[in-house]
Amino acid sequence: MERIALDMDGVIADVAEQFIRYDERDFGRRKTLQEIAGVKERDAFPRCREYVYSKGFFRTAPVMPDSQQVLERLNKDYEVFIVSSATEFPQSLAEKQEWLGEHFPFITWQQIVFCGLKTIVSADIMIDDHFRNLDQFSGTTLLYSQPHNLNANDGKHKRVNSWQEIASILL
Amino acid sequence: MERIALDMDGVIADVAEQFIRYDERDFGRRKTLQEIAGVKERDAFPRCREYVYSKGFFRTAPVMPDSQQVLERLNKDYEVFIVSSATEFPQSLAEKQEWLGEHFPFITWQQIVFCGLKTIVSADIMIDDHFRNLDQFSGTTLLYSQPHNLNANDGKHKRVNSWQEIASILL
Repeated sequence: MERIALDMDGVIADVAEQFIRYDERDFGRRKTLQEIAGVKERDAFPRCREYVYSKGFFRTAPVMPDSQQVLERLNKDYEVFIVSSATEFPQSLAEKQEWLGEHFPFITWQQIVFCGLKTIVSADIMIDDHFRNLDQFSGTTLLYSQPHNLNANDGKHKRVNSWQEIASILL
Repeated sequence: MERIALDMDGVIADVAEQFIRYDERDFGRRKTLQEIAGVKERDAFPRCREYVYSKGFFRTAPVMPDSQQVLERLNKDYEVFIVSSATEFPQSLAEKQEWLGEHFPFITWQQIVFCGLKTIVSADIMIDDHFRNLDQFSGTTLLYSQPHNLNANDGKHKRVNSWQEIASILL
């Protein structure tokens, strides 16, 4: 059974939407996709660092559309590990695990990995929205489209724009 | 640079001593090493499961003798990752990271991995007190002696009895 290392933020957790909501709350206007396309999150959202260290940010993040249904099916055909670069934000660890328990109850604690660098992970397929994680991975890579990576040259990685697209490739 | 996957509980955190202290608090007598040698923790300490889910258990665990000095030197010669099977106890995640920050301040968040199964980890050397983790690892293995594994047949794994012994092998 092939093993998938699946990123959390920007793949199953819609942190871009969460950033937009927090930013709108603070600055009174909802930024458009056009404004933030290809812009690093720390440049697109001035208070980005405050948000990720604030209580509740990860716990209340929206779920990426269709990710629950597709992941439940993937979980039958693959050995799925949720691999989240989370130790930079220690307060997020419990929030992230609670979030997974609420929205992805079929993912067990055995399938969860919270780390700093993803170089430590051994898997066949990696799904991630960051080049820094995919570039150093030796297996099959899928780049999940997110505002911050929209204008980047995919180059080595197959870009996917939705969970339906992931389903059509892996199921 | 070779990579070490280093277990936390029973290797750098002296959870056996922590179990003994909690057990003595509850039952009024300090168990001897002889009594618990070769006995699984859940059998040696009747309230074991309560302890590991209780606030503060991991945060206040004693540090394994000599582990700080030796690990600080290993950290210069190897790529060290602390790999702790911690997602079974979500409340322990923040405690464990705080504990590491207090006692091993030279270990950065990039070097910390909290997971369920250690099969996900890619490394050259694994130091652990549990056969279930070492048995499935393909690299070099060191079994750290702990009461629960004392009477077990080491078989495939080199047994080490102290951090000085780890130093003599790896430094």
